[in-house]
Parts: sequence; structure tokens; C-alpha cells
Amino acid sequence: MTKYAVLAVLMISIAACAPPPDAASPAAAPKVILIIGDGMDDQQVTIARNYLHGSDGRLVMDDMPYRGSLQVRTVDDDEPERPVYVGDSASGATALATGSITSVGRIGTTAHADLDVTNIMEMSQEAGLRTGIVTTASVTDATPASFLAHIDSRYCVVPARMVYVDESFPQDSTDCTDDYIANGGPGSIAEQIAASKIDILLGGGSGAFDQATEDDESITILEQVQENGFKLALSISDVRGVATDDRVLGLFSPGTMPVRNRGVDGRKAEFIERDDNGVVWPEPFSCEANPDFAGVPTLVEMTRAALDHLDGDTGFMLMIESSSIDKEAHYWRPCGHIGEVGQLDEALQVALDYAKLHPETLILVTADHGQAAHITPQIADLAQQNFASPGRFARISTPEGGVMGVNYATNDSPHWEEHSGVQIPFYASGPGVDDLPNYMQQTDVFHIAARHLGFGDSPTGD
Amino acid sequence: MTKYAVLAVLMISIAACAPPPDAASPAAAPKVILIIGDGMDDQQVTIARNYLHGSDGRLVMDDMPYRGSLQVRTVDDDEPERPVYVGDSASGATALATGSITSVGRIGTTAHADLDVTNIMEMSQEAGLRTGIVTTASVTDATPASFLAHIDSRYCVVPARMVYVDESFPQDSTDCTDDYIANGGPGSIAEQIAASKIDILLGGGSGAFDQATEDDESITILEQVQENGFKLALSISDVRGVATDDRVLGLFSPGTMPVRNRGVDGRKAEFIERDDNGVVWPEPFSCEANPDFAGVPTLVEMTRAALDHLDGDTGFMLMIESSSIDKEAHYWRPCGHIGEVGQLDEALQVALDYAKLHPETLILVTADHGQAAHITPQIADLAQQNFASPGRFARISTPEGGVMGVNYATNDSPHWEEHSGVQIPFYASGPGVDDLPNYMQQTDVFHIAARHLGFGDSPTGD
Repeated sequence: MTKYAVLAVLMISIAACAPPPDAASPAAAPKVILIIGDGMDDQQVTIARNYLHGSDGRLVMDDMPYRGSLQVRTVDDDEPERPVYVGDSASGATALATGSITSVGRIGTTAHADLDVTNIMEMSQEAGLRTGIVTTASVTDATPASFLAHIDSRYCVVPARMVYVDESFPQDSTDCTDDYIANGGPGSIAEQIAASKIDILLGGGSGAFDQATEDDESITILEQVQENGFKLALSISDVRGVATDDRVLGLFSPGTMPVRNRGVDGRKAEFIERDDNGVVWPEPFSCEANPDFAGVPTLVEMTRAALDHLDGDTGFMLMIESSSIDKEAHYWRPCGHIGEVGQLDEALQVALDYAKLHPETLILVTADHGQAAHITPQIADLAQQNFASPGRFARISTPEGGVMGVNYATNDSPHWEEHSGVQIPFYASGPGVDDLPNYMQQTDVFHIAARHLGFGDSPTGD
Repeated sequence: MTKYAVLAVLMISIAACAPPPDAASPAAAPKVILIIGDGMDDQQVTIARNYLHGSDGRLVMDDMPYRGSLQVRTVDDDEPERPVYVGDSASGATALATGSITSVGRIGTTAHADLDVTNIMEMSQEAGLRTGIVTTASVTDATPASFLAHIDSRYCVVPARMVYVDESFPQDSTDCTDDYIANGGPGSIAEQIAASKIDILLGGGSGAFDQATEDDESITILEQVQENGFKLALSISDVRGVATDDRVLGLFSPGTMPVRNRGVDGRKAEFIERDDNGVVWPEPFSCEANPDFAGVPTLVEMTRAALDHLDGDTGFMLMIESSSIDKEAHYWRPCGHIGEVGQLDEALQVALDYAKLHPETLILVTADHGQAAHITPQIADLAQQNFASPGRFARISTPEGGVMGVNYATNDSPHWEEHSGVQIPFYASGPGVDDLPNYMQQTDVFHIAARHLGFGDSPTGD
């Protein structure tokens, strides 16, 4: 709920961790492109590289001039002084967007006290910079929402889900009573998007906007979005048809956008069977184009459209998310997450090409949290030939002629695999990156972006 | 077996990946300290940091001026053009020691063709530099052996194990027939150590040296070691009693040296029980001093003794290994690997203190391969409360008041957990490190060390 802006406390660590940008920084208005691979840890990067470029190949990110690691921190919501060692997209993206550590599931609010924390998009808008968000998830999903909204729970997406009891999945139950507009709050995530000042917002999630507003059941949130000045786009050419000084919401699928790749015939990791002779090793499979992806805008196309829309003399803050690295790993689909790391890496190349022409552009690439998929031997050695993963396991035939084992074994649940609390990779290019320390907190990404955009000393804009 | 020195091919990638040391490199003789955390990947680093320093704390390695990542590559021994995505200590340490990619289990020899590849210690000795190895493993174990020997299999440790059939563990079977001294080979690993020119070699593994030589059953390998000019040390004070221009073999335990920490009452990760009410979450436990470690030299003490022994005007190549990060993770003992990352980090501080006084010292810190332990939620969230790891799982009570879940689930074997093929962290300080790329091959570590020691242009010493 909206209580107080507690922004002042956010800047404490700047002096320690985020060195000032290059002394000879260009006169042009500063630009930041923050690229988030949801769940993209060192395992995900290696899995994707091995498949897409071979084990001796290189991703675009491998050649970034800076690479460090970030500690992902989360806290208990009831006792916010207690550390929690595994975060989610909400807590991770809130750390990146606001510089504030919070608890799992929260969007732009502090743990327990539930104070709103100003995000980098709001600061940019306040300072007259342009802002944009591109995601392959629903635009209401936890990562983009953390750059757009302030609310108790990531699941309070539309008015009908603000107070919701889910008997089967209690974790999905929500109580965002305080956030109802009627109670003086900012409303659901979709309604906060409708009220936001973002200049361009591209992704999936049209389903949420078809629903009624809290205020007036006869009006959809989509109508509210348009009433508030957004142009609606349903294709990339629609986006390109919007004048660059207009605000645009592009919605390209009802929910999460389809991913680029899948296992041949839809294959994914599965529990390994055992018979009387021991382990039945599954047949290796390779990746193929996902038929559902046909006609869906690529992350590259969305990134290009967003850069063209935001480009100009004003400066901007753009966040780009490849969201389904995480989602595909949750559901044991290695080809899915390989393809989405690939999409991110290609979008990064677009950003680097833009920065070549606009050297005042700071590019930051990182994750919100780690994922628990990991590369393990594709078949046990002789000594352990009768033993295999107790979780889901895939043997992936790589184009270079190898077989890569990818193991998912955080639980025996039929629902989804868990995240990991591992430190995450952080890549950067642009002014000042040579001075970045090699190990930082995830929250420092916010401070680095804020400093580059000129909010370093007076971030509240007061 | 010894066939040909194939060193020339090793230097191919130098030009691409290992920039020359700082142009203004000091006139003093170059020194390299290579610190290897066996199995020390980003998960291991994060697990150790969370426990030892808190989730907002810092390890010594976190403040190193350079951090990148290394791809670990291994190949199939029968078809060496086929990539294998998960390596072991033998292939990983051979890559680090020789710059050559090989197959799992091989020590300083190429896959399939079985050619000896010259290692950085031999090159240093040839060039008149001093050399040293410190390990918490047996000095005959795969990592130190890769810097000391050339042989078909890591398991050919003593003459009695050169040809060996193990019915229960076929992987441990060996056939090093070609390497017998009688067949013109260099003999077992322990015998190759006896014949080596290393100046100081400290670690465990006295058991191997009590065995008879191949040549003469009435002589132990230990006698051979002494005959070949080594002074024997059984304590750090023994080591310090040896004149610095003498060669010294320090053996401080029969096999792998005991580790510093263990779970309270010896607790480790275990399969999670289920009863009629669902998952029985195991009680959290914390770490305590391992009673077996009492009186054992620490890695810091061994590192100091080695540096004091090698220090001088000559320059040196020193490899220091914290070996039981890997071994403790194999056997589901999180407190064990936490303590051994801690030992490595403290030894790194000793190296950094040395380098402060000797700025011609290049310090390189990396791993031989990844490990499959990973941080996962310490307890399932409400939605998945009846589901838990299908592998071994530990809930670790951290000193900062949290509970960290550590999951080991690569197989259901009673023997050991598997490695991971993830890219590994690489830290460095000293001349030239500012110019290192952020992503390299594991073999580039050899090239960087070789270049710093002056072997860049004419590595064969011809």
C-alpha cells in the first residue's frame, strides 16, 4: 500500500559500491538499458552457450567489458531482520528497481512495514527522462511490475485477485485489501500500469486488461489504459505506427509470450525410469522451433521498437526482460530456457549496437535470482551406472555432437521446480564500468543506474 | 606414458586470450601463486559466504581486482573430437597445469593419443625458477598429480595399482601397463613424485609412500624420495627446519587431510523422510570444529611455509589447493565444504599479503570443475509444502540467524554425488590482470601463468 516514500534510505550504499561514472562522461543525456534474464545464473548461461555456440563458443555477454557477481538478498516478511537465502522474481526485481531488499512476493514495497519504495522508472519520469519496459512475460508479471507498481503481492494483478483464497495453492492466496483504491491504495497491478507514466510497455498479458476496473465494473482496465493516454498496439507494426512522443502499451499474447524453442516433439526433462536391469537412461533429444512461437514478436524486435521509440535528446531508462528462462526451467524444459537465453543475448547485441552510436548509454545485464537447473553427467560412469538423478533429467543432443545432461531436482513436486540462492552474474558496458567492483549486492544495480542517470546525490528529486 | 612432448600446440590460444603482463612489469623475478578450490563454483562460494560472513558479508576473494568466468572443457577418450560437458579433477587440473584439454581421469596426458603434455612446473624448473605445491589432499591426488606427473589414470598412484581390476567399482579399474618403468614409462604417480624436481610439496598421503617401488620391492617409495634428495617433513616445524635451498616433501596425514569443520555431531545432508502427514523437514544444524582436525596443519600454515621456502630472487610457481571443497560436497557434508572454502580464502589473504611486498606476484584463483551442491529454499512454501528434495538435503542454521537449504540431488547413489559442468569463477590480482577478458577457457589460466613467468614466446625452453 502507499504509505510513505522511503527513498532516502535507499541511497546509503552508493558511496561504498557504485563509483561515479567516467569523469569524461559525454554531454548527451544519459541512457540506461537494464537487461534482466529471469533466473539466468551461471548454470543457465553455460547450458545455453554449450547448445547455441558449442562449448568452445561465445555468447555476446561473454565479451562484455565488465563481469562481476551479485549477492541476491531477501528477508522474512514477519521478521525482516532474518535473512532468507532464496529469492523470487518479485524480491529480486524490487531490489533491482528500487535498491531496497524486500521479502518474497512483494512488489516495490518493504518487508513487513509495507512501505512503498520509489523505483528507477518513477525517478526517471520525475527527472523528465523517458522510460520503457519490454518483457516476454505478461506486463503485469513480477519483474516488470516491480518497475511499475507498489503492492503487497505479485498475485494482486487485477481487482478480482486482490483478495483471493486458493485452497489448493495457499501461496497464491492474496490479501491486498489495503491496496484497494477504495481504501486509499493504488489498486491492482494492471490498474497501476494504467495509471503509470511509462512511455512504452511491451509484452504479453492482454488477459488482465480485459477485466473490469475496481471503480467501475462497466469499464475494462484496457479502456482505462487508453483513457489515460496510452495507444494500444497488438503487433510490432502497431508499435511503430505510434508517434514517438505518445505513450504505447503493446500486448502480444493473452499471458506469457510463447517461447522460441522446445524439445523435439515437445520433450522435456522427466523422472528417470528404473527396471529390473537398473536405470533406463532416457534417449537424448535436441531442440526445435516451438510452433506456438510463429508470428510472435521476438525480444530483438521488441527491443528495437522500444529503442526507436525512446531514442532522442531526452535520455531514458529502459528495462528489457527475458522472462521465460525462469519459467521454462520451473517446468523442466531445457530447450525452452536455452532459447530464451539466446533471445536475451541477441537483444543485448541490439543494445550494444545502439550504444555504439550513443556512447552515453550504460548497459547492465543481470538476473533476479538463480535457478536450480544444473549440468550433470549425461550418463553415470561405470562405478555408478545403476544410479541416476532422483529428480527430472534430460539428455540434450547438442549441435556440436555431444550429449549434455541437465538435472532438475529441487523437489518431487508435480507443480514446479524451485529457485536457487546462488550469486548471479552481472555484466556491464558503458561509462564508468571499468571502476565497478567485482562483487556487489543486487541492490547496487539500482544505485549504478541511478548514478548514471544523475540521481546520485539527490535521488528524491526534492 | 611418455611419448612426445606436445607442448608447442599448447600455446596457440595465448595471442587470443592472454594479454601480455603490464608493460611496466617490475624487474624482480616473476612469481605466480595459483590457488585452486577443488569443485569451487559460484554455489560453493555463496554457501560459504552466507555461513562464514553473512549474506551481506564479503570473502577475501570478493575483493580481488579481477573476476571472470572459465569454461571447463573435457573430451571423450575414445573419440576426442566429442565434447563432454562435465569434467573431473584430473581433466580440470591438467587443463590448468598444461593448457591442454583432456579426458576425465587423465593426468598430464592427452585424450586417446596418450601423449605427455609438459606442465607449468616442469617449464618453471627448466627455466630455473623454483616450484611448489600445497594441497589438503594426498599429494598423489588428481589435482597435485596433474602438476607433477604424466599417466593414463589418476588411480595409478602406486605400483600395486598400475593394473587393477575393481569388480565393484569398474571405474576405479586401471590399466597403466605402458607407464610401468619396466616398459619404458615414468612409473606410478608416487614414483613420479619421487623423481620430480619440485622444491616443496606439502599435503597428505603418506600411505602411498610406504609402499614398495616397482624396481625393487625391498625399497619403499619414501626411501626413494629421500634418495632423490628430498628432505621429509611430518610437521610444519619440520618444514621450517629444512634449508630453503633443499627440496622438501611434507606429509601430514596418511590420506586426505582432515577438514576443519563438520556439522554438529557429525550431521550432514540426508534423504528427507515422508510420513502419513507429508514431508518431515529435518531439524536445522550448524557447524562445529571437526575433532579430527586438531593438530593438523591449516592451509594457511602450509601456504606460509611454502612461501617462506620459495621466497628469494629466483622467482617461483606455487600451486595451492583446497581439495576437500569437492570431497565434502561429494559426501553431502555442507559444513565440511564451507570450512574448506574458508581455508582457501584465508590462504588467499596470505598470498595477497605476500604480493603486497612482492608486486611481481601474479595471484590466480579458480576451480577445476563445478560441484552439484546448490542453495534451495530451506523449507517449501505453502503451495508446495508436501514436496521436498528427492536427493540429500541439509538445513543449515547460519550464525546470522537464518536457515540455508543446501541440496545434493545428482543421483540416488550411496557412493558419491556428481560434479557439475557449470562455468567456474576465476579471480586474479597482480601485473596485467586489468587486461584479462571476462570469459576465457580454463586452459587460459596456464597461458596466463606461463606468460607471466616469461614462457610466452618460447615455452619449450628450446
